[in-house]
Amino acid sequence: MPASLALVGNLDAQEEADYLAALAAAMPGETVRPFRDLSEAERATVEVAIVANPDPAEVARLPRLAWIHSLWAGVERLVRDLGSDAPPIVRLVDPELARTMAEAVLAWTYYLQRDMPAYRRQQEAGLWRQRPYRAPAETQVGLLGLGALGTAAAGRLVGAGFPVAAWTRSPPAGGGPPGVAVATGPDGLTRLLGGSDVVVCLLPLTAETRGLLDAGRFAAMKRGAALLNVARGAIVDTGALLAALDAGHLDHAVLDVFETEPLPATSPLWRHPGVTVLPHITGPTNPGSAAAVVAGNLRRYRETGRIPAAVDRGRGY
Amino acid sequence: MPASLALVGNLDAQEEADYLAALAAAMPGETVRPFRDLSEAERATVEVAIVANPDPAEVARLPRLAWIHSLWAGVERLVRDLGSDAPPIVRLVDPELARTMAEAVLAWTYYLQRDMPAYRRQQEAGLWRQRPYRAPAETQVGLLGLGALGTAAAGRLVGAGFPVAAWTRSPPAGGGPPGVAVATGPDGLTRLLGGSDVVVCLLPLTAETRGLLDAGRFAAMKRGAALLNVARGAIVDTGALLAALDAGHLDHAVLDVFETEPLPATSPLWRHPGVTVLPHITGPTNPGSAAAVVAGNLRRYRETGRIPAAVDRGRGY
Repeated sequence: MPASLALVGNLDAQEEADYLAALAAAMPGETVRPFRDLSEAERATVEVAIVANPDPAEVARLPRLAWIHSLWAGVERLVRDLGSDAPPIVRLVDPELARTMAEAVLAWTYYLQRDMPAYRRQQEAGLWRQRPYRAPAETQVGLLGLGALGTAAAGRLVGAGFPVAAWTRSPPAGGGPPGVAVATGPDGLTRLLGGSDVVVCLLPLTAETRGLLDAGRFAAMKRGAALLNVARGAIVDTGALLAALDAGHLDHAVLDVFETEPLPATSPLWRHPGVTVLPHITGPTNPGSAAAVVAGNLRRYRETGRIPAAVDRGRGY
Repeated sequence: MPASLALVGNLDAQEEADYLAALAAAMPGETVRPFRDLSEAERATVEVAIVANPDPAEVARLPRLAWIHSLWAGVERLVRDLGSDAPPIVRLVDPELARTMAEAVLAWTYYLQRDMPAYRRQQEAGLWRQRPYRAPAETQVGLLGLGALGTAAAGRLVGAGFPVAAWTRSPPAGGGPPGVAVATGPDGLTRLLGGSDVVVCLLPLTAETRGLLDAGRFAAMKRGAALLNVARGAIVDTGALLAALDAGHLDHAVLDVFETEPLPATSPLWRHPGVTVLPHITGPTNPGSAAAVVAGNLRRYRETGRIPAAVDRGRGY
């Protein structure tokens, strides 16, 4: 049977089985086969590649590919690795991912606002000391990025009583979510950093955002502020972050993402008392909800012949 | 000038100054003086005592006392220490306290649902491992207690997508907050404990709740469940809790309250990997909002001569 859909990716056996089962359940009329099972003749029939961290050489061996559906929201490696003449790339925009990511932003914002890292250190020292309580209304959150994930996070934070400002490349039509002050440009970024008690990074990794949070940007942050990075590790200059923590300028960093993952054993981040290391868990992809999004996009493509909105390679997302 | 209001309590100098300033600002027409500043003649004019952890002997030296306003929600020591012929005791029911307590319940429920203690241990061990994600919808929360604080906590948890059940002495009129299953009686408690992934204790300390969470009640809890105690330490049998944790039956306990506070340095709770020790910080009293509640109660008393709803000494709260 000719395959029109291929799954291309570096997944472990369990993950691959989970995705294939979820895709089969979501699209009973379609057949998705893993790349390695396809003959050369079958590869020539593949119209859409569903990809998760794929080997670019495998994608290049699908000569009739019309478009590529990523199973992840972050596509910076795909854009870089596939080259400029690759077919259009469609990102995963999964409402369930936006929900889990917004929940994580709220959960770790509470972690910082409620001083959980400091109380952990006090417990280790056997110290009973009540620290001053800072209400959400007194804890300004600055979001970097206001896409689907940033917008969902802003809604949860505003609902919990945190004042929220957001920095974005271009202001959204209508001025952004209710109750959120929107800033743009380099001056807007400096003002947002200077006014925030907690800075949350939700930016895509692009040529413009790589290394964005450097020594100068940390110096622009409020003394005693905290950073939560749930986007991509390479947006943060790790050396500059450690220097800002060691100088006492920043109080804490919660890092879910790193330039190299898994985080190497030699990284000083593991043992720094001002850093919470998470193994890239804040926005887990849910095979079931991801497959439902892929199925919806494919159904519209089958019905209309139109490829869904794809990544702008110039912007990188 | 004769004093009609006295502040009686064991407060440090800063706390006493904060409360006196907040009470003066909230009630410009009243004068509140600390007990120790009053002559015997002045003590005989005191009509209402505003108390925070008072020495019962001092309260007994106010011969014309009509009623007592506690600055705290928990009054078990007052009820026990003041004896049965003391004037009526009015508890603090502060909406701001309900808000901070409900926020704390949600924040530490996220702490447990998002596996923060386990990721902390993984970081200490330099271990990069993604644990299975459990959504709020899959995390049943069982609230013990459904007074003002429990009702506020239930609202925040339901809003965040957690299924919530509550156990209470007597079912509230109307059946409890929207979306919350209400249980009563010993069988209701056993069922609630057996169905909950996170058990949150918000009960008052009374003769009936002292030692309520004992070995049998921990055995009735789900394997792998967690406990959050933000009420009173004496509700929990600490030895039984440690045994349940050591046996691997319970996964974690977050304890904000202890039978003796500050928690003694010799307590094994400090160093147990399955216990998060907090120094009684989840529901900080806010002098400003507490003073506003006291002022409202006093104003109604001045206008009507009626003492506000007081503690039922039989129930103990």
